[in-house]
Amino acid sequence: MIQKLIQNIQRTGAPIVVGLDPMLNYVPEHLQKKAYEQYGETLKGAAEAVWQFNKEIIDAVCDLIPAVKPQIAMYEQFGIEGLIVFQKTVEYCKQKGLVVIGDVKRGDIGSTSEAYAIGHLGRVKVGNQLCSGFDEDFITVNPYLGSDGVKPFIKVCQEEKKGIFVLVKTSNPSSGEFQDRLVKSLSADGGDRPLYEIVGEQVAAWGSDCMGDSYSYVGAVVGATYPEQGKILRKLMPKAFILVPGYGAQGGKGADLVHFFNDDGLGAIVNSSRGIIAAYKQEEYSKYGAAHFAEASRAAVLAMKEDIAEALENR
Amino acid sequence: MIQKLIQNIQRTGAPIVVGLDPMLNYVPEHLQKKAYEQYGETLKGAAEAVWQFNKEIIDAVCDLIPAVKPQIAMYEQFGIEGLIVFQKTVEYCKQKGLVVIGDVKRGDIGSTSEAYAIGHLGRVKVGNQLCSGFDEDFITVNPYLGSDGVKPFIKVCQEEKKGIFVLVKTSNPSSGEFQDRLVKSLSADGGDRPLYEIVGEQVAAWGSDCMGDSYSYVGAVVGATYPEQGKILRKLMPKAFILVPGYGAQGGKGADLVHFFNDDGLGAIVNSSRGIIAAYKQEEYSKYGAAHFAEASRAAVLAMKEDIAEALENR
Repeated sequence: MIQKLIQNIQRTGAPIVVGLDPMLNYVPEHLQKKAYEQYGETLKGAAEAVWQFNKEIIDAVCDLIPAVKPQIAMYEQFGIEGLIVFQKTVEYCKQKGLVVIGDVKRGDIGSTSEAYAIGHLGRVKVGNQLCSGFDEDFITVNPYLGSDGVKPFIKVCQEEKKGIFVLVKTSNPSSGEFQDRLVKSLSADGGDRPLYEIVGEQVAAWGSDCMGDSYSYVGAVVGATYPEQGKILRKLMPKAFILVPGYGAQGGKGADLVHFFNDDGLGAIVNSSRGIIAAYKQEEYSKYGAAHFAEASRAAVLAMKEDIAEALENR
Repeated sequence: MIQKLIQNIQRTGAPIVVGLDPMLNYVPEHLQKKAYEQYGETLKGAAEAVWQFNKEIIDAVCDLIPAVKPQIAMYEQFGIEGLIVFQKTVEYCKQKGLVVIGDVKRGDIGSTSEAYAIGHLGRVKVGNQLCSGFDEDFITVNPYLGSDGVKPFIKVCQEEKKGIFVLVKTSNPSSGEFQDRLVKSLSADGGDRPLYEIVGEQVAAWGSDCMGDSYSYVGAVVGATYPEQGKILRKLMPKAFILVPGYGAQGGKGADLVHFFNDDGLGAIVNSSRGIIAAYKQEEYSKYGAAHFAEASRAAVLAMKEDIAEALENR
């Protein structure tokens, strides 16, 4: 699946992933109204509004981008009905040829991580049948529990040719609270280094057993909001694809991103969520209006693509 | 909800939580067969088998215990059908007066953690209505993203009188890989301390704004398999209830647990999953046979209750 991601990036010329993280207040009034008329002001109504919103955006941008990243929390907030729409969104995007990165940030002790891995990337054995649950192409994984919480995901990736992105340095303001703490070296002659570097080294080690042609199936999440750390982590994990959230609404810009990429122009994929899916709410794209929200999203994708291409050319 | 948890513990005299983590191979053949006859060897068939298994166990043990802890991964592996059974299990346990701890280990950047908090503990606004998603009483939370990833959960806990248990030192063999790493003090005169202590201190700080009568709504997860660390963390977080996984099948014993409790006999609740729900597969309880698996679970709860009570008396 890392090969398909790379092919998609090369075909579109856009190392971009659109975050399908639909807050209800991003969904234009007219879609909400129609869904509530059909299903009432219920979880099912909300989920239907989100689905119609997603579908229109996907249709409008799918030829421009290699991948999408639905954030499962935004669906989970609507309970089962929301998760049904998560699943429909995954399926619909795959039909359109997009790589689907489920942003689920799962991670637990071994046997439990295995169940998550099976549910999101693999197949579960029921009697004599193998059945798929959510069936994303990649998911994000939280490393706090250490190797035995991560390796079950890697095992399923090897079996199913899928991939993971492990949280290393997240994009949020307080990510440094634990991730930046200086950790003592285990060897007498080593210096102190921040925790995210220790985790980054493990990502490189985990990934070495699980290689595509040039990149590993085991990638990393490093926030666009921390370009200096991105530069260091790029070198520590040369074969890891980096999923870079935090572009746009969270403050990251194209110029901040150049060091997340390798010299081959690959190695990173930059996510924007709000900046794309709620573009029509920004002054820059307000001319589209709520009725043409998906066209605003398309314009925002084109602008993001150009911003990143320009930054990479000028590096 | 922390008050209800304490009342339930005092009423039953058992600081015990039963982990409803049904692997399909725990579910007796006769239940699987019946479910597959009804729904085929499908996700729905598997979910139905799990539901019948859960229900029988809950009926058999609910008068003995204060709380249950369904592990959502074990349901998520069966996709939507599994999650429907997760929700039914939560509801059924609440009807029986049990406190429900959703073991979901969620955690993300601020706005995303808010969506998880709403989906699992709170209510989401749809038009003019407030709708509940999964509606557990407590959930477990992963702290890797720092304060702005945890505080949205605390905010919902304050609004809804619910609670969280934050992962501090997990029960798995490789939990030390990151959690035990020695971290440099931020002040010049401080010594180096393991990361789990730093996280534990934050749990105490987060919880101080969010107090029940004697314990905070913000608890911690500390594995039974690490009793020495439990002793230290008990003192670092005197007002935090500790959820203690790892008893039984993972190797923890009653005698290991005494230091997780405060002098008031409260402050900890010990989880057993496999050891209870798959008791009929152990030699000790094999006389019950698969047909009477729920009676074996009841016997295992009684034995666990006695083991812990004895350890607490002899401390």
